[in-house]
Amino acid sequence: MKDKILNILKANRSEWTSGADICRRLAVSRTAIWKNIKNLKQAGYNIETQHRLGYRLVEIPDFLYPAEITAGLATKCLGQQVIHYHQENSTNEAAKKLARQGAEQGTVVVAEQQSSGKGRMGRHWHSAAGADVLFSIILYPEISLAEIPQISMLAVVAIAKAVEKVCAVQAGIKWPNDLLVNGQKLCGVLVEMAAEADRVRYVVLGIGINVNSLPLQWPEEIRSKTTSLRAECGQEVSRVKLIQAVLEALELLYDQWHQQGFAPISKLWRTWCVSQHCPATVKTIQGNYTGWIEGVSDSGALLLRMDDGRVKTFLSGDVSLAVDG
Amino acid sequence: MKDKILNILKANRSEWTSGADICRRLAVSRTAIWKNIKNLKQAGYNIETQHRLGYRLVEIPDFLYPAEITAGLATKCLGQQVIHYHQENSTNEAAKKLARQGAEQGTVVVAEQQSSGKGRMGRHWHSAAGADVLFSIILYPEISLAEIPQISMLAVVAIAKAVEKVCAVQAGIKWPNDLLVNGQKLCGVLVEMAAEADRVRYVVLGIGINVNSLPLQWPEEIRSKTTSLRAECGQEVSRVKLIQAVLEALELLYDQWHQQGFAPISKLWRTWCVSQHCPATVKTIQGNYTGWIEGVSDSGALLLRMDDGRVKTFLSGDVSLAVDG
Repeated sequence: MKDKILNILKANRSEWTSGADICRRLAVSRTAIWKNIKNLKQAGYNIETQHRLGYRLVEIPDFLYPAEITAGLATKCLGQQVIHYHQENSTNEAAKKLARQGAEQGTVVVAEQQSSGKGRMGRHWHSAAGADVLFSIILYPEISLAEIPQISMLAVVAIAKAVEKVCAVQAGIKWPNDLLVNGQKLCGVLVEMAAEADRVRYVVLGIGINVNSLPLQWPEEIRSKTTSLRAECGQEVSRVKLIQAVLEALELLYDQWHQQGFAPISKLWRTWCVSQHCPATVKTIQGNYTGWIEGVSDSGALLLRMDDGRVKTFLSGDVSLAVDG
Repeated sequence: MKDKILNILKANRSEWTSGADICRRLAVSRTAIWKNIKNLKQAGYNIETQHRLGYRLVEIPDFLYPAEITAGLATKCLGQQVIHYHQENSTNEAAKKLARQGAEQGTVVVAEQQSSGKGRMGRHWHSAAGADVLFSIILYPEISLAEIPQISMLAVVAIAKAVEKVCAVQAGIKWPNDLLVNGQKLCGVLVEMAAEADRVRYVVLGIGINVNSLPLQWPEEIRSKTTSLRAECGQEVSRVKLIQAVLEALELLYDQWHQQGFAPISKLWRTWCVSQHCPATVKTIQGNYTGWIEGVSDSGALLLRMDDGRVKTFLSGDVSLAVDG
């Protein structure tokens, strides 16, 4: 009901819509309208009320409400269900809980602020409340465990495409799933999963993008290595439009991946990659390896030509490009 | 304290041990001894009490109590912590919960009975209360996702070794982790895990072995395809000794795997395998494939020579041997 009223006001934006009109169109009482308008105002929608004239939507708040994300979203599955939190410990944790309860494929959990955001390898992920974008997508891919890392590589391609589309910022990918602008980090991807040895039960794809936060909002220790879309393009970026663009790009790639395998995604990934043919060090549990990045395999593994000439294949690890330091 | 008293009584089995003696050795009061003896009796230990003579352990109950499993267990890590339930929904579920809370590597969860035991691919796992063996082991292996299926193959080798050692039953492995005697199933292995794309958070290795149950205790629909150790060797088998033997064999193989990789395990696996060079059908999500089993790769994948001559590699799937049906 709330969303229906909102849609009527949006369609007649900055004009007056009479209470009687809404009553008639939705076949509800004046009291019901009044209660829902009150709820919308509490949610941050600036709605003017005037005797005889009715209601007028003056301003939509900058929150990632489900009604905003789903409005005009051109996907079949991803983001058709959105759960929004103003504050949540971690959208990935919330999404995993929902996945265990059998939430639908493509369900999105979005938060304005995370109190304990997680990055890869147990690291913390910092984000500015209300300025950046944090969301997690629930997926049930029918793949083997070995193919799981491909999801994060696929995601980062989708984000790179979305960023270019929404604000014309050209970012580059560093293996496996860092998105950089001039060597500074723009986003993080954290794939978590529950599985049996031969069956993936669910995957939660967590995405954090620095959108409208500015350097002074970032912890000092990461400031020199971090950037945001606003810092790059000099103006605020619509977080809703960005999320929609990511979901749309992701759905296309995800479907392509299921139909054609990883090879075409890997090709795309390479065109966005900035760490091809660079001197680099790969840190792994087994130790550190230095050499030149040869590229990635068709299954997404990193190929490093080591100083002794051999090419080593990495399924996981942290890459430091020599140009980084 | 309870376990200490039990150990004193066990060391002096079928003889009388005076209360005064126990008091002196453990430096506790008569009341404390009396309370703990009462607890032991409630747990099923048959302990005679006689004025002036003291206590005498007459019979150890056939339960998988931690004190029984850890007594004489020749492992460094696996099974050094045991959590016992008379009744639990699923030992894997209980173990996953403990793993999320950071339980120690090698912690074992054991249950006399499972109300909703799980098998692979979401199937049910049947077991007879108090007669069979159900336990789950918490592991934190430092491996990539692609290597996870190797854990279940490693486990089934350990079980095959333990079964041979404890009751001289010679079982054979069917890919990936079925243990059969004359084509009838003896045990099930269910590996579950939580992970990120490049970090395994924990693995729970669930093992169910048909030990002392008999055909009439099994559901009719699986009766012709099922066997138990008792059915095979004609006498009851010590469940405690079997669990100890599995944990001991598993620890050796697990350490070897971490040090030398899967190749030596794969070699061992092959010597126990009964499905080499058999006509078979492999059922997968993508479809069914028919051919001859060529063997397994050094990383544990199944190699099937198909009717058109090509060799197809399977990371997961269900194998039906032509001899099965």
